[in-house]
This record gives sequence, structure tokens and C-alpha cells, in this order.
Amino acid sequence: MSSPFIGEFIGTLVLILLGDGVVANVVLKKSKGEGSGWIVIATGWAFAVVLGAFAAIATGSVQADLNPAVTLAKTLNNVYTFPVAFSLMAAQMAGAFVGACLVYFAYLPHWELTEDQGTKLAVFSTGPAVRNTTANLITEIIGTTMLMFAFFAIFSKTVGAIAPGFGTFLAGVVVWSMGLSLGGPTGYAINPARDLGPRIAHAVLPIHGKGSSDWSYAWVPVVGPMLGGVIAYLLARLVGLAG
Amino acid sequence: MSSPFIGEFIGTLVLILLGDGVVANVVLKKSKGEGSGWIVIATGWAFAVVLGAFAAIATGSVQADLNPAVTLAKTLNNVYTFPVAFSLMAAQMAGAFVGACLVYFAYLPHWELTEDQGTKLAVFSTGPAVRNTTANLITEIIGTTMLMFAFFAIFSKTVGAIAPGFGTFLAGVVVWSMGLSLGGPTGYAINPARDLGPRIAHAVLPIHGKGSSDWSYAWVPVVGPMLGGVIAYLLARLVGLAG
Amino acid sequence: MSSPFIGEFIGTLVLILLGDGVVANVVLKKSKGEGSGWIVIATGWAFAVVLGAFAAIATGSVQADLNPAVTLAKTLNNVYTFPVAFSLMAAQMAGAFVGACLVYFAYLPHWELTEDQGTKLAVFSTGPAVRNTTANLITEIIGTTMLMFAFFAIFSKTVGAIAPGFGTFLAGVVVWSMGLSLGGPTGYAINPARDLGPRIAHAVLPIHGKGSSDWSYAWVPVVGPMLGGVIAYLLARLVGLAG
Amino acid sequence: MSSPFIGEFIGTLVLILLGDGVVANVVLKKSKGEGSGWIVIATGWAFAVVLGAFAAIATGSVQADLNPAVTLAKTLNNVYTFPVAFSLMAAQMAGAFVGACLVYFAYLPHWELTEDQGTKLAVFSTGPAVRNTTANLITEIIGTTMLMFAFFAIFSKTVGAIAPGFGTFLAGVVVWSMGLSLGGPTGYAINPARDLGPRIAHAVLPIHGKGSSDWSYAWVPVVGPMLGGVIAYLLARLVGLAG
Repeated sequence: MSSPFIGEFIGTLVLILLGDGVVANVVLKKSKGEGSGWIVIATGWAFAVVLGAFAAIATGSVQADLNPAVTLAKTLNNVYTFPVAFSLMAAQMAGAFVGACLVYFAYLPHWELTEDQGTKLAVFSTGPAVRNTTANLITEIIGTTMLMFAFFAIFSKTVGAIAPGFGTFLAGVVVWSMGLSLGGPTGYAINPARDLGPRIAHAVLPIHGKGSSDWSYAWVPVVGPMLGGVIAYLLARLVGLAG
Repeated sequence: MSSPFIGEFIGTLVLILLGDGVVANVVLKKSKGEGSGWIVIATGWAFAVVLGAFAAIATGSVQADLNPAVTLAKTLNNVYTFPVAFSLMAAQMAGAFVGACLVYFAYLPHWELTEDQGTKLAVFSTGPAVRNTTANLITEIIGTTMLMFAFFAIFSKTVGAIAPGFGTFLAGVVVWSMGLSLGGPTGYAINPARDLGPRIAHAVLPIHGKGSSDWSYAWVPVVGPMLGGVIAYLLARLVGLAG
Repeated sequence: MSSPFIGEFIGTLVLILLGDGVVANVVLKKSKGEGSGWIVIATGWAFAVVLGAFAAIATGSVQADLNPAVTLAKTLNNVYTFPVAFSLMAAQMAGAFVGACLVYFAYLPHWELTEDQGTKLAVFSTGPAVRNTTANLITEIIGTTMLMFAFFAIFSKTVGAIAPGFGTFLAGVVVWSMGLSLGGPTGYAINPARDLGPRIAHAVLPIHGKGSSDWSYAWVPVVGPMLGGVIAYLLARLVGLAG
Repeated sequence: MSSPFIGEFIGTLVLILLGDGVVANVVLKKSKGEGSGWIVIATGWAFAVVLGAFAAIATGSVQADLNPAVTLAKTLNNVYTFPVAFSLMAAQMAGAFVGACLVYFAYLPHWELTEDQGTKLAVFSTGPAVRNTTANLITEIIGTTMLMFAFFAIFSKTVGAIAPGFGTFLAGVVVWSMGLSLGGPTGYAINPARDLGPRIAHAVLPIHGKGSSDWSYAWVPVVGPMLGGVIAYLLARLVGLAG
């Protein structure tokens, strides 16, 4: 039992268990990491990507995208056909959902202790620091364009030749950097599965005293990253990093 | 004088000297790192693993488990016979005990200055943020399953082929990630020797003004991780990462 | 469309988008990383250098300087002719300008919320903690001399032989270290393009409620780094690291 | 102009410029990194070691000790004769002195702004959190024994075979870990040159409003580390890591 679909499912599950997990550690009441701040969140998500990617690779994925925006950009670059791409995206979404459910169980006593409903949702999905649809969309587009362009760069032949074996670590550095530098306004979804899968989990899980899953914002961290993936592909093509 | 047992003893000694040491630095009164927070604790434990593993490898251990839950999962995977496994676990436990004693001496003037008895125990062993046996057990099971599954992934042939020589560093990243993302509810024992060895040290050392060693909780960070090791093995087998 | 000039343009754009971006995240009001401190800033700039360098390399730059002071030192070392060097510096400056503009858009709603004009300028350009021209110049000279001497060391044949493939990562470590250790007094410009390009962007962008671009200080983070580059070259020559 | 002595001089100069520099950044008044805490200090010293070691290697040192306690342990292990060892230690001490002087100049306006005399000394040399000669000595002995034993382990043939090229990075991880885990009680001198060279600089430099150089404590971070070096050698010999 090992295939690109299993790999994307498991890899994205690991990504969200560890990624949403670090947010839970920092924001939920009485958690030992409560209030430990942005360096913990950005570092936690970076390692979530590295371990998610290696888990995906070990279980059958060659590409280890863990992100529909990445899969879309690669599909435009003829790495996948669209039907294959949609199946991979579905596997990513399912993995993200299961990963978020595991975070719920790992932090079980802390939901009741955390009164603020927005904080509880923040463990699962992103939300804007300042609610402004156009601005939030721009931020997600810039972030995902940067993310995907960086992936085109670090997995290029030139970089592969001077730093062989470092690809997956560099992917972690890319996400670490996105969090530190571009995460401020919207919490850097930059990945539709990372946001939508856990939002569905938030909606269906029996979280103590939970509030709205904020569906009115849910399209922004889906559409923004997808557009960013397309733009990154076009830019990569312009400079010879994509065909 | 160099063998797998010596290696596990020295490696786990180093793990606990540096791991319990970082907790001492952060929580004991008047320590220079007092109050420096979760990023210091999680980073300190990650490097404790890396240096513990290299110390183990240099002194005769090939596997450098430093953790009975890891040894158990590998035993199920036919890496060891059970008698050998029990000897390795005993060496880990002894190393953990001695490492904790060295932390006591390294931070000698700070025990008297630290009034809170729970804080003094926290240097040695883990305790739950919210005391709830079932929930705490679930957290430790999820954490150790993730830990051990990640080890199966990073030491798989596929990952070994694309990132040769990185295994031990990746093991550090795994533990770094566990601390950042899943350490909030119980302080991430995820290792029976890491918890029980130092708890015994706490019980026998003449720590100024110490309180209870909290034996009623002591079985949770032993049983939880052992169950997590078994589950990780079963999952790894399901996806072809274990035989 | 790929050349050393394109490479320096894109690489410096990435450097400033991520570098000025991390400052925006930490200092702008209501940003999710607000107040997360120096570890976030220094780490963010380090990864900005790593990703900027790999972006530069992937798009046609072999040297990936991203910094006129580095280009100057290499020109003295006969890596470039002066006309080529000036073109590369112009590409760096243009990239820095565009990168800073993207930061403006990524953090769009936060300019209005941030009242302090000095804080808004700080996202773009450096300023002294204590205004003292001679002292500030000395700090920038020491910082850039250390930066460039470290580059001569890590890209030497000796180091290249024992740590092949690590050059670009080490360049990130160098800048990480500069920020942590020598960034306190002036905010470590150590790069004329990093300071002047974004300062011009600050001057021309319609930033809500912006104040002065502090042109009276602008020459210090240009002249200091250039002098540091020259001194580093002379020192490197003295110890056989430059010809 | 390149030799083991030049290498040790330059390497230790870089170590102290960046190491004492990070302390200056964190503790001096109005520095941009003021109050940024232990994670910044421990990380800064780790990179100071990595860059110091590569600077030493690039300028003629094969061993890159940067530390008389390390040189002593290697001398016992027959890497050097004692006369060579003393010359290397002298070069380390001189480099540490010059590095500390450069920190003085880099942070020039901040000495006057920082009233506390102990804080000013802390930039240069270590001091105990709790003054207790026996305990402080024990802490420095445990720290340096751990440091040097880790060096024996990471530069062993076994580890060199599985992680080639990582030695200098691992040395940085070792010092990072020492700071995080064992730095609390005495500020982890674990290196006589790191403490004594800058203490002499503190004594002779015209630092605004400086106080005592605390000579009564000065022998502890010299004798403790030297004893630690000897003990580490004996332990390494016991387990076959030294001859």
C-alpha cells in the first residue's frame, strides 16, 4: 500500500498534524507553549513541511507537493495531467482533514479551557489580521507566488547541481521564510488544502464551545494560493525555469 | 570499551544531560536562561537528540535509539531479539538516570533558590498541563506514533537515497518538531527512559526542598510511548515501511 | 531570459521582499508577528539571503552577490571588470526597489494602522539606534568587513573541499550571524542596495501617513559597506584568500 | 601569510567579535536587540563558532580549536606537542583580545547609555548567576567535559563516515546545545581564551563608566574548562575515542 495518492494523503496529514499542532501549542490556554510566539509558529510549520514531505516520499510520492497550488503549477508545467492532479489534490485535502482531527485529540483538554472562539478556529484555519478581501487576496497571491517561484528555483537543475540532496530541506526553509516574512497579514495559508481541510474538520468536530468556521473568508485562502501558483508558473516560464 | 549497550548508555546520558539541562536553564530561578520559553526548550531537546545520537554511534551503537519505544518498534520489525532489546532499554534507563544526576550537579545553587516543588520536578520528568489520564495518554500515544512513524520514514531506503548522511540530523528535526507541535499538553515524554530514569533520579537525589516525584502519573509517559511505538510499527507495516 | 543581470535583479528582489517583509511582520501594528523580536528579524533576513541567492543562481547568476559591497570586493579581486560590476550593482538596486514595493502591497492594510513614521521607514531602510555618524559608520564598516571576509573564507578552496555544496547555506549563516551579533547599533545594512533601493521605494510609494525618508543618513549605509568591502578584500589578500 | 597560528588567531578573533557581539546586542541599552533573550545569545555564539572555525580553516588552521581546553585535550591525545600547543593557545588568547576590542568599537555609543557596570563586563566575560566557587567550577567542568567529549564523538571515524563534511556545522550545534542546556549557572565560558582574552580587553579599553573586571572570578573559567578538557580526554580514551 504505497502510491503517489497515499503519499500525498499521509504527507499532508503529517503537515497539518504538526502545523496546526504548533498553532494549538502557542494559542490554546494552559498549553505549555502558550504565548511562545511567532518564532515557534514559523519554525513549527517549517519542520511540518520537511517531515510531511519525507513522509510523503517514503510512502510513494515522488513529488511530495502537499499543496494543491503547487500541484496546479506543476500541472501547468506538464508534470501531471489534470485528472491525476485533481486526484492528488483530493488526497491532500483528505490528509489535511485527518491531520486536523488528530490535533483535536492531541489537545483534547484545552478546547474547553480556551474561551475565545476565534482562537479555537485559528488552530485549524487562517484568518486575516485585518479583514479586507482585496488586500488579503493580494497578500495570499504574493505569498504563494513567492513560495512556488522559490520551489521552481530550488528544484532547478542549476541549484540541484550545486546543492544535491538538499531539496526537501530547502522546501522547509522556503516555508519557514514565508511564515517569518509574509505571514503577518493573513497567517500565510499559501495552500488551499492547509486551510480548507482543517476548516471542514473545525465544522464537523465536537469542539467544546466552538464558534463559526468563518465560511465567508474561506474562499480567499483557496483562490489566492491557486492564482499565486499560476502566476509563479508564468514567471518561472519567463525566466526559463518552467517549460 | 565500546558496544551497543555502552553506546545506548552514553547516548541517553548525553540526551538527558542536555535535555533536562535545557529545562533547568529555562525554569530554575536565577538561571541565565530563566523564562526564555518554549523555543529554547524545544531547540535544546532537538540538539540533545542529535548529540546523544552521535555520542551513541561513536561509542558502539549502530542504531542509537536512546528510547525504549523506538527499540520496541524496531524489535517488532525484527531488528533485535527481545532479550537484546531489554538489555538496550536497561542501558537507556541507566544512562537517563546518570544524565539527570549530572544536571543536578550542573545547576547546584539553583535548587534552593527555586521554591516551587513542581518546577523542580519538571526539570527531571514530564507532567501534564491539565491532569486527565485518558487525554494525557492519547497525547503521548499520538506524539510517539508520529515520532516513530517519522523515524521509519526518514530511515527508509527512498529517503536515504535522496538525502544520504542526513539521518541523524533529521532525527533531531523530528524531535524538534514534536516539541514545537505536540509538546503542549504533556511536555512530550514520547520516551519512557527520558521520563522514568530522571524521575528515579529526582526521587533519590538530595534536592533542596524537593516535593513528590508524582509516581501516580509516572506510568502514563511509559505506557503511552510504548503503545505509540507499537502503533507506529503497525502503520509503517501497512504502508510498506516495515516488514 | 536568464543572465547574470536578471539573476542579480531577481535575487535581490527576493532578498528584499523577504527581508523587508520580516521587518514589516515584526514592527507593523496588528501584524500577526508584531513584537516577535530580534530572533525573528535575524532569522528572516538569513533565509531571505539563502532564497535570494538560490533564486539568483537559478535565473542566471553564477556569483549571486545581491550586494554592491560584495560585488565591489570581487571586482577588486578581478572577478568582474568595473563596467560589468556597475551593471550588476544597478540590477541589484532595481531588484531591491521592486522587492520593497511588493512588501508595501503584501502588508497593505497595516500602514494606516501604524502611526509611528519611523516604524514605517524602518520596514524599508535601516536607521541608527543612536545617531552618531562616526560611530554608525564604524559599525557598518566592521559589519561589512566581517561579512565579506567570511564570504572569502567560506568560498575558499580549503573550506569548499571539506564542506562541498554548503556555500549558499553558509552565506545564510553569515548574514544570520551578522544580524544577531552586529545588528544592534545600526540595524546591519551591510549592503548599499538593501538600504538605498527600499529607501527610494519609501520615497515614491503612496504609504499612508509616511514621514521623511531620512536622506541625511542614507549615505552611511552606502559608504560604510563599500569601505567594508574594500577592507575585507585587503585583509583577504593579506592572508592569501584573495589575489 | 597563512599558518595554524594565524588561523587560530583569526578564528578566535571572529569567534569573539561575533560571540561577545551577540551579548552586546542583547544586553546593552538601546541596542536594537536589547532584551531579545537567551535564544539570541545561544544562537549567536553557535554561529560565531561555525564562522570562526571556517575562518580559521581558510587561513591555515587544520584543527580550528579556538579554545585552549580543546587544544589541551588534543595535546594529551598526541595531536600536538606541548610547545606547539602553547603557541596555539597564545594565538587564541590574542585573537580573543582583538575580537573583544572590535566589539567595543562596533557598539561604541552604547557603553555610555548602559549604566550597570556588571552588564558592561558581561559583554566581555562570563560571570556566575549565583557566586559559589565550588558550584561554578563544577558547572564549568561538566560543560567543558560535555563539549570536548562531543567533539571527540563528532570527529570520530564512525561519525565522519556517516556524516562527511558536517564536522564544523556539528561543532556549532555542540556549542549551541551547551549554551541552551548548560549555560544557565555560569554563562558557559567552557573556553579559557573566550573568557580571559576579553576580560583583559575590558581592563585596558577606555569603556565609559566601566567597573571592576572581576579578577577574583577570572580563574574559574580558566581552570574549570582546562580540567574539563582533561576529563573529556580520559573518558574518550576509556571508550576508545582517544588513544
